[in-house]
Amino acid sequence: MGKLREPLDQLAACGLPQALEVTGERWSFMILRGAFNGLCHFEEFLGALGIAAEDRRKIEYRLTDKGLDLLPALLALKQWGEKYTLTEPSNPVVVDARDWLPVRPITICAHDGRELAYADLRWQERSKIGQNRDLEHGNPHE
Amino acid sequence: MGKLREPLDQLAACGLPQALEVTGERWSFMILRGAFNGLCHFEEFLGALGIAAEDRRKIEYRLTDKGLDLLPALLALKQWGEKYTLTEPSNPVVVDARDWLPVRPITICAHDGRELAYADLRWQERSKIGQNRDLEHGNPHE
Repeated sequence: MGKLREPLDQLAACGLPQALEVTGERWSFMILRGAFNGLCHFEEFLGALGIAAEDRRKIEYRLTDKGLDLLPALLALKQWGEKYTLTEPSNPVVVDARDWLPVRPITICAHDGRELAYADLRWQERSKIGQNRDLEHGNPHE
Repeated sequence: MGKLREPLDQLAACGLPQALEVTGERWSFMILRGAFNGLCHFEEFLGALGIAAEDRRKIEYRLTDKGLDLLPALLALKQWGEKYTLTEPSNPVVVDARDWLPVRPITICAHDGRELAYADLRWQERSKIGQNRDLEHGNPHE
């Protein structure tokens, strides 16, 4: 990622530590997994998590936009787990409703859609973004 | 996601629970964040995490392919945290080394690159994948 580095001891300027504060528990993602699978009642979540209980309130839970926006992260984790931890292929498979073919592996893409590997990434000061549009190659700051 | 649902009480057929077993701790991602930022010594990681210690062994840690493959998930979490938890824009920014423009938000894409929302996704039995390539619309199994 070049010579520039995140200020790793300052948590305020990076979304990751905050995201982990909210989601960084196994249960958070397991509950979201249930919600993405269409669960909407308390007992259904407990059942999916292997816990027995009863909630007489019959509240219906729905994913907010904030919850829905975690789906790319959740799917990326699922795909990683499929690649490195499963001994047999996952089933069922997440497919596109239009042609029923599996979705792509989640990747990091440039603004024009090119897939980027770790070696293609750099850190850049936010104040300098857009100053180097004429430079197609090289690192103007190293 | 349609009528089909994952067998939520069976953990073996989905990569997510296993991925969470490995990564589902805040510290795992904070350590990976350090590694992606180029840290490679024990003391550097401790320093970045706010812990003081000394390791006389001078072992150098490098990301394996398994670790590198967590970057899309990590970046998706970071972007989510930026959107929902930060009060000011993150800095520095992850950019593409070719043109120094910020990377795209991580999204879920179809095999042909179309961006897919949650409403576009379905579960499909693995054994049925590829049987419906002539069907461009509709749900052949509902």
